[in-house]
Amino acid sequence: MNSWGQIFRISIWGESHGQQVGISIDGVPSGIALCEEDFSKDLERRRAGALGTTPRKESDMPHIVSGVYNGFTTGTPLTIEFLNENTQSGDYKNLITHPRPSHADLVAQQKWNGYNDPRGGGHFSGRITLGIVAAGVVAKKILGQDAKFATEIVEIGGEQDKAKFADILESAHAAQDSVGGIIECRINGIGAGLGEPFFDSAESLIAHLLFSIPAVKGVEFGKGFAAARMKGSEHNDAIIDKRGTTATNSAGGIVGGITNGNEIVVRAAIKPTASIAREQNTYNFESGKVEPLIIKGRHDVCIALRAAVVVESAIAIALADLKLRA
Amino acid sequence: MNSWGQIFRISIWGESHGQQVGISIDGVPSGIALCEEDFSKDLERRRAGALGTTPRKESDMPHIVSGVYNGFTTGTPLTIEFLNENTQSGDYKNLITHPRPSHADLVAQQKWNGYNDPRGGGHFSGRITLGIVAAGVVAKKILGQDAKFATEIVEIGGEQDKAKFADILESAHAAQDSVGGIIECRINGIGAGLGEPFFDSAESLIAHLLFSIPAVKGVEFGKGFAAARMKGSEHNDAIIDKRGTTATNSAGGIVGGITNGNEIVVRAAIKPTASIAREQNTYNFESGKVEPLIIKGRHDVCIALRAAVVVESAIAIALADLKLRA
Amino acid sequence: MNSWGQIFRISIWGESHGQQVGISIDGVPSGIALCEEDFSKDLERRRAGALGTTPRKESDMPHIVSGVYNGFTTGTPLTIEFLNENTQSGDYKNLITHPRPSHADLVAQQKWNGYNDPRGGGHFSGRITLGIVAAGVVAKKILGQDAKFATEIVEIGGEQDKAKFADILESAHAAQDSVGGIIECRINGIGAGLGEPFFDSAESLIAHLLFSIPAVKGVEFGKGFAAARMKGSEHNDAIIDKRGTTATNSAGGIVGGITNGNEIVVRAAIKPTASIAREQNTYNFESGKVEPLIIKGRHDVCIALRAAVVVESAIAIALADLKLRA
Amino acid sequence: MNSWGQIFRISIWGESHGQQVGISIDGVPSGIALCEEDFSKDLERRRAGALGTTPRKESDMPHIVSGVYNGFTTGTPLTIEFLNENTQSGDYKNLITHPRPSHADLVAQQKWNGYNDPRGGGHFSGRITLGIVAAGVVAKKILGQDAKFATEIVEIGGEQDKAKFADILESAHAAQDSVGGIIECRINGIGAGLGEPFFDSAESLIAHLLFSIPAVKGVEFGKGFAAARMKGSEHNDAIIDKRGTTATNSAGGIVGGITNGNEIVVRAAIKPTASIAREQNTYNFESGKVEPLIIKGRHDVCIALRAAVVVESAIAIALADLKLRA
Repeated sequence: MNSWGQIFRISIWGESHGQQVGISIDGVPSGIALCEEDFSKDLERRRAGALGTTPRKESDMPHIVSGVYNGFTTGTPLTIEFLNENTQSGDYKNLITHPRPSHADLVAQQKWNGYNDPRGGGHFSGRITLGIVAAGVVAKKILGQDAKFATEIVEIGGEQDKAKFADILESAHAAQDSVGGIIECRINGIGAGLGEPFFDSAESLIAHLLFSIPAVKGVEFGKGFAAARMKGSEHNDAIIDKRGTTATNSAGGIVGGITNGNEIVVRAAIKPTASIAREQNTYNFESGKVEPLIIKGRHDVCIALRAAVVVESAIAIALADLKLRA
Repeated sequence: MNSWGQIFRISIWGESHGQQVGISIDGVPSGIALCEEDFSKDLERRRAGALGTTPRKESDMPHIVSGVYNGFTTGTPLTIEFLNENTQSGDYKNLITHPRPSHADLVAQQKWNGYNDPRGGGHFSGRITLGIVAAGVVAKKILGQDAKFATEIVEIGGEQDKAKFADILESAHAAQDSVGGIIECRINGIGAGLGEPFFDSAESLIAHLLFSIPAVKGVEFGKGFAAARMKGSEHNDAIIDKRGTTATNSAGGIVGGITNGNEIVVRAAIKPTASIAREQNTYNFESGKVEPLIIKGRHDVCIALRAAVVVESAIAIALADLKLRA
Repeated sequence: MNSWGQIFRISIWGESHGQQVGISIDGVPSGIALCEEDFSKDLERRRAGALGTTPRKESDMPHIVSGVYNGFTTGTPLTIEFLNENTQSGDYKNLITHPRPSHADLVAQQKWNGYNDPRGGGHFSGRITLGIVAAGVVAKKILGQDAKFATEIVEIGGEQDKAKFADILESAHAAQDSVGGIIECRINGIGAGLGEPFFDSAESLIAHLLFSIPAVKGVEFGKGFAAARMKGSEHNDAIIDKRGTTATNSAGGIVGGITNGNEIVVRAAIKPTASIAREQNTYNFESGKVEPLIIKGRHDVCIALRAAVVVESAIAIALADLKLRA
Repeated sequence: MNSWGQIFRISIWGESHGQQVGISIDGVPSGIALCEEDFSKDLERRRAGALGTTPRKESDMPHIVSGVYNGFTTGTPLTIEFLNENTQSGDYKNLITHPRPSHADLVAQQKWNGYNDPRGGGHFSGRITLGIVAAGVVAKKILGQDAKFATEIVEIGGEQDKAKFADILESAHAAQDSVGGIIECRINGIGAGLGEPFFDSAESLIAHLLFSIPAVKGVEFGKGFAAARMKGSEHNDAIIDKRGTTATNSAGGIVGGITNGNEIVVRAAIKPTASIAREQNTYNFESGKVEPLIIKGRHDVCIALRAAVVVESAIAIALADLKLRA
């Protein structure tokens, strides 16, 4: 399904080595000031180049092709495209005959009977998330200036001490390996009442979008999995004023599927990058044997670094849809 | 939103102390043998009475009121109702003036301007999940006999040794407290190819439904949060045969959002029951002060015990919807 | 698909001779005064008994089973049921072997491989529309007191002179035949701006619901088919004030798919009742020949009479959904 | 709402004078041969230039930017764009101050608080329907080679004699006026069983899409409005063989909302082009008076001529979505 959302509805398309990736956003209220520069800051956070990310850089220039007139959103579908610059694909036959472990190469072939575009992972490429970041920028405008997002990597390769992150990244790179990480997003200023029980709880919508992002394998709110190890007397959040402020925030700002006005706390677990330079064994459909595979090219040592803004954007999209429904 | 699903679409309703809770299921193929007894086994798994669950019992008899004719599904909407037996509510005024910590009492008032039904938690009652269990039974019939679900509590109050669960439950009960737990569901026989990237990944749909269930605060697939602490070389699943069997199963049977034919592994973190017998402090809207609250009645010491079948049912529903789309 | 609507979302179920027909309505704002008596007037308009309708009467008592507390809607799903009183079915084997012309008997068998409930037309019975009328009552409350619906039969059996309607009905009855009719609904007080181009134009949503009603075979807005016979200079509606009032109303209050604040005018063509007492020839699957068929029982001479309130209700539902989105 | 469809889901965007109009189609099965030339024939039918259409021509070259690889659909979103060539807009201020009768100029301003793109009608331009035609081509491939569409103009300006159409068009042009028309589409080879009662009847889905098309003001199936003037004994379609062939086809191939395997017959009423060269009176928001308006430029005398293929395409889309659900 390429579309998501009830009122703020996004539709995406594109492949890694096709002409472009894009997104069309419906339900954007009219009269929101918007220009291409508005996307720069968040797109920059997603860009490669820093320590632990792939040295391959490409321009991620957004093109607004509909839905903005004289600098303001019109109320009709807002479409944003990103041209793919390097669509000269090498030989991708090996992705078909010798599919990469923990990549979608094989399931894509199985699902679409071999008609999938295998080049660079095709539709499964992280490049698709450019549109999510763009939509997130618009979503944050809808949520308003009071809504504050603070997103950070709280763990890399099992280490929580940020001072040691650089070491972990460097040693993983040296070992031709990759590492996973945990992204935490804290949001203030959303207010109480967002979430539509039973099925469209705030947690459900946020998790739905987060699990669309390649590499996310876990999502938790507030104390999350740690809550399962707590007693009720420890976990319960006492209400301390008439606005519903709580003394603790085990719930992560969502109770009964509805935001309660306290800080929203979401964490996403990002698996280690599947592409590693180190030799791996996996099945070769040509030879019919398990054989060594070398994945060429330069890869992100830790994709969590670039995924952080994507996670934040997805959360913003879910909250914007809920706000427009309320 | 009271409905969910693209083809296998469920709609639920009801309140804890209203006349009934129910579910209507659209998209059920015709010709599936179905009678009320088919629901017994799973409903029994959800029922109270065992150690760690509330001693309050009520009959959970399902009534099929449409969609079945001569013992087979007709292809038109299948509706199942559960009458509420004890709808004599006591005085619920205190839930409004002195809302329970970590319950939806206050957010429901805020969201619906005080018009919500507060009795027994109203629409937020776990009783609503009866319909989810019923729909899960139908979903499993759609998935077919090859699909095997194995669901268990893998952790209670932080303890993974099942031999010690009884002690934990008893001591929590003695302390007028509650404990959380972790539910794990392993599914075999689903086959490769279910999941609709980008937005309707198998993980997205399963997580969407799981986070609708009251008390779920975390969801993970395969290695989940542990994956974030692994290296790529450890985490990657080597393919070892032409069907796509993998040597390890870090992915939990889902790659690129699509099932890969290996065992599907899902875990849900359940917070400790919010209702505890022990005195708690929380804001009293009448006095305008934080004051002690005693929650009367008998409660589940560990709601994870009864939630296990609900989690399994929700996963079955998500997979059935994906199967019918494929 | 048993559900419809984006925010005001309705889900229906039931068969003519099952236990009940019902509807669950999501998205109803909290705080609307609602009791079972509120449905009486519109249900009465749908009831049989008048000239031209079947003499068979049954009680159509609505039961609100969820979503109302202390006389007001709660904001959670509102479910209304109608018990079927006479579910003692006679022998329906003949509907299977000798399907009635212009009924759904045969297509239902084809679509659902013979598992459909054939009794009284099953899910295709007009009785299903009880829920639509109930939802229409709620929809009108959402549209508010300024919204005024005026619905009438403007044509029966090709006759537009209302003074002659009784004669036409009586002579059709005497001839063991049936007649069709045209229902016109005029709505004032809706205001400008409802409708979501491109796909969810006000006309699209209204027509979608109207064509769900059994027996509707045509829908038009404003001048409708007559517009196709006009010149632009005749058809165009000159705007005459700053609120957008037009000198004429060829558009029927909807331009570009959006309400323009002028009177909304919708007409629906209702085919003659398919069940007629007169002998008809049709294929007998048992004998393998075209053979005479006598349909027993008492039938509506002109179903348009009872369908008028259903048409009005469907329009109200569509407009309520659009209002809640805006 | 810019998207439509359950499985075959289309999302559109664009404005008349923006950079492009486009469509993204989800749910297209993999392995369908598709290239840009496949769209030529239907796009040609929509093109201007013939008698009764505007002499303004522009290239309507489709660009497939995602979803096709090596000449076949991939199973992931298929996106098609049409660049707008002449986006040099003149002064559109007069559309705001002196809105054209029976155009969306005024309602668009009201709905979007003046932020709408007014140039050339913006999102309300018929140019948006390029995407519908493109999606229709794909839909017909899904329906298969047995599905045969025959679409024609059966009435122009009230005249049914095709020999006289040219005269009517010429005299309307000479009179600086426009005329409406009726489009009829007959489809064979669809088979029985498409349609999902209650809400997604085949008629409902077709009508939903048809009423999205600018200028459609009426839709009917089979005998349509004429059915309302018939007796049951005349209108009923006797079944004459075991496949469900009927002696007559008053139903237009759809009974109970489900296709019955007979020819599907749909008619759409198209209003006369709102833009006429003749002087009209309408409200001038600047002067606060009703004043004469001259609409400059060249216009279609009868938009029904170019709309025929759009109507056919919309019907194909609705049927393809139903086929993929079945």
